[in-house]
Amino acid sequence: MSIKIGLLGFGTVASGIPFLLQENGQKIEEAAKDKLEIAKVLVKDDAEKERLVAAGHAYNFVTDVDAILSDDDIQIVVELMGRIEPAKTFITKALEAGKHVVSANKDLIATHGKELIALAQEKGLAFYYEAAVAGGIPILRTLANSLTSDKVTRILGVLNGTSNFMMTKMVDEGWTYDAALAEAQRLGYAESDPTNDVEGIDAAYKAVILSQFGFGMTIDFEQVDHQGISTITPDDVAVAQELGYVIKLVGDIRETATGISAEVSPTFLPKDHPLASVNDVMNAVFVESIGIGESMYYGPGAGQKPTATSVTADIVRIARRLSDNTVGKPFNEFSRETRLADASDVKSHYYFAITTPDEKGQLLRLAELFNAEDISFEQVLQQKASDNQARVVIITHSMSKTQLAHITDKLSAISDMTLLNTFKVLGE
Amino acid sequence: MSIKIGLLGFGTVASGIPFLLQENGQKIEEAAKDKLEIAKVLVKDDAEKERLVAAGHAYNFVTDVDAILSDDDIQIVVELMGRIEPAKTFITKALEAGKHVVSANKDLIATHGKELIALAQEKGLAFYYEAAVAGGIPILRTLANSLTSDKVTRILGVLNGTSNFMMTKMVDEGWTYDAALAEAQRLGYAESDPTNDVEGIDAAYKAVILSQFGFGMTIDFEQVDHQGISTITPDDVAVAQELGYVIKLVGDIRETATGISAEVSPTFLPKDHPLASVNDVMNAVFVESIGIGESMYYGPGAGQKPTATSVTADIVRIARRLSDNTVGKPFNEFSRETRLADASDVKSHYYFAITTPDEKGQLLRLAELFNAEDISFEQVLQQKASDNQARVVIITHSMSKTQLAHITDKLSAISDMTLLNTFKVLGE
Ligand SMILES: NC(=O)c1ccc[n+]([C@@H]2O[C@H](COP(=O)([O-])OP(=O)(O)OC[C@H]3O[C@@H](n4cnc5c(N)ncnc54)[C@H](OP(=O)(O)O)[C@@H]3O)[C@@H](O)[C@H]2O)c1
Ligand SMILES: NC(=O)c1ccc[n+]([C@@H]2O[C@H](COP(=O)([O-])OP(=O)(O)OC[C@H]3O[C@@H](n4cnc5c(N)ncnc54)[C@H](OP(=O)(O)O)[C@@H]3O)[C@@H](O)[C@H]2O)c1
Repeated sequence: MSIKIGLLGFGTVASGIPFLLQENGQKIEEAAKDKLEIAKVLVKDDAEKERLVAAGHAYNFVTDVDAILSDDDIQIVVELMGRIEPAKTFITKALEAGKHVVSANKDLIATHGKELIALAQEKGLAFYYEAAVAGGIPILRTLANSLTSDKVTRILGVLNGTSNFMMTKMVDEGWTYDAALAEAQRLGYAESDPTNDVEGIDAAYKAVILSQFGFGMTIDFEQVDHQGISTITPDDVAVAQELGYVIKLVGDIRETATGISAEVSPTFLPKDHPLASVNDVMNAVFVESIGIGESMYYGPGAGQKPTATSVTADIVRIARRLSDNTVGKPFNEFSRETRLADASDVKSHYYFAITTPDEKGQLLRLAELFNAEDISFEQVLQQKASDNQARVVIITHSMSKTQLAHITDKLSAISDMTLLNTFKVLGE
Repeated sequence: MSIKIGLLGFGTVASGIPFLLQENGQKIEEAAKDKLEIAKVLVKDDAEKERLVAAGHAYNFVTDVDAILSDDDIQIVVELMGRIEPAKTFITKALEAGKHVVSANKDLIATHGKELIALAQEKGLAFYYEAAVAGGIPILRTLANSLTSDKVTRILGVLNGTSNFMMTKMVDEGWTYDAALAEAQRLGYAESDPTNDVEGIDAAYKAVILSQFGFGMTIDFEQVDHQGISTITPDDVAVAQELGYVIKLVGDIRETATGISAEVSPTFLPKDHPLASVNDVMNAVFVESIGIGESMYYGPGAGQKPTATSVTADIVRIARRLSDNTVGKPFNEFSRETRLADASDVKSHYYFAITTPDEKGQLLRLAELFNAEDISFEQVLQQKASDNQARVVIITHSMSKTQLAHITDKLSAISDMTLLNTFKVLGE
């Protein structure tokens, strides 16, 4: 006997699974308590099928998903096609057909996960997706299994490899955003349309999923504020460095007295913060909790083998539970009523870069403006920007998102000043 | 109904459990699927009992372990006394009495774990000890659950907080070993007899346990070579820095063609290696594997709350499995025949610090000596050490432990040279 698996899609990640079954078959079989067999593989069309067979892949390739869905011998369906449709329909049908499902599809899970999770639960089926967050890092299972005894208060994560690769070039080597993007595209890290990676959308998907595992709350993708890295200038990077910070795109989920807040934004990290040395395409999730205190989980956020390893760990888990007769438990059992934090409760230090006329009294004007909103300065730098303009950089003390909205409005209304950039600063 | 727990010992770690049950009770109860109740607590004598009661601890303190062992309502015994005896006897008796056991006792598990694990398995009972390695870092469960699909090839760990605190002072602030030790003792990190921490014994215990989870092999404590930090001089630290390295006490377990090798030794880590920025009392476990590639698990290696969090996670796991009727599985199911690597297969770069007469031709003598053992140099530094002595520092290319033994013998036999120190260098 063996456990039969149907793969949907045979792209980058899916084609990494055979490598693991081959190179690590015995350990996997012992852990799964059964042999795992890739019984059928869905591909788009006959041309693709022929191409793969010619390339030496000896699988039973099919072009109609029903060949998998109606095959009673297949117990686990592994969706690795990506995108929302037809992935959503196929997963739904697989669950309706009584099959356990593994997926790495963060886009889908962050935006339609609720329904799929509910359906799986209703049917008593497993729906696992470790690879959807931080590819090779086993963060979801760790939050679900090992941090059960702990109460998480904040999760900070470098969650997107492409943007982190770009930020590393911009910070370590002073590259511009455009140069970093071009290099990321040349190396195949960024797609031709890099929006999801550089605008923080991909990281926001992951923040949605992390909220469920870390805080037991299901927030909607729209409730995650996201700001990307495209507006970061070499000036911002240089000032950050001068003040002892490294800029990275950071997902930040935390619980305040009124509820949780989740956002993705370029963030000034103190140089000695563990996340500050997470470079290139690596990802890391930094967890603050009342028990452990601070812990960090670091590894590749993407890539064929790391992602396939997480997918295979999910498959092994289902296989084990089939043998233990405990299959069907939700991937994440931690669930509380979802409450979103009041903006006035979400506090951070902030960085403001502002151009002002190069005249006397500008700092005083700014000080009065910020003071009127009850925001105080921690550090101020003033530089000549051009013949008649100065560049003022302010790092504030802790202030709320309400205050941030107010001061941003006020600054925008001033005709002879320009608010160049505002970024969060991780303070003490 | 609730699950009743007997605590053996009520010291630092044990007294952190009530904090978690108090502050995180609901999440713990939901995860455990039952209420957890500390039914009885073993303390040494009546004086201790009175002291604890007077301090406001409202537990049922007992001074005879049989009060716990013979209590049929107690399902889980949590050993947090430390040392080998009577902990070993008490755990054995608890298992014989049909109770599941949780422990954080790395000394005991590394030296007598085999028998206890076998007994638990024979009785169909759980014996969990997540807290025994790297305190608050959930590394054992992660290796057992998430890395099942992966094949680990090497584990490098900063596994002892006390020595890492000392090394951080020695590296970042140029302190001597003695000054660092005095400060560690002042802060309560090091005991009055610091041998286990500074000589790599504690880290070697953890290496034994990591070998089981990472490689499925049970090696004996005696098979882990260990070298401590007490011989490291400010000169060594300075040279390391000059060459782009940080020295840390590192546990290193890897699999070669002939088997595994485990050792603990001061190690030169390249400055940009993720372990190089693990400072103070923090621990980290860096895992190399064929699937994920490189991943790292970082957090506090000790401390009341972090360690109690790991212990409580073990308790929750047992409670869950009691409710699922799947209790009794080994903590680690990965097991292969234990094979130790041939010394000739265990290769590293090495650092040698040698004093020679301050005369011409000394480097040539050394070059001939190393060349005769087929060891080549990667970097060489020569400094004046005193009026008539020079200090030569050599970083070699990759060489085996067999070659290391030969060259060390040869150097020791030379009357006008002194081999000051030899440390492993993590190379590319
Ligand atoms: N790559 C990573 O490092 C990584 C990391 C974490 C998570 N993930 C997630 O893993 C999933 C797969 O990613 P990937 O990188 O492997 O993508 P990929 O290389 O594009 O593979 C997807 C494959 O599915 C095929 N496919 C799409 N629609 C199909 C359909 N209707 N029927 C049959 N086949 C279909 C695609 O064929 P065509 O090429 O012909 O469209 C392609 O071969 C995505 O959800 C992604 O977000 C990937
Ligand atoms: N502390 C950490 O951060 C940490 C981290 C990881 C693992 N651990 C492990 O956790 C275990 C507990 O460590 P700990 O720091 O909590 O030690 P601890 O503070 O010394 O606590 C041990 C307690 O057990 C008591 N005890 C000893 N023998 C006893 C006996 N026969 N009957 C009743 N009580 C007895 C001790 O009493 P007396 O003081 O009167 O002897 C003490 O109160 C050890 O195995 C340690 O290696 C600790």
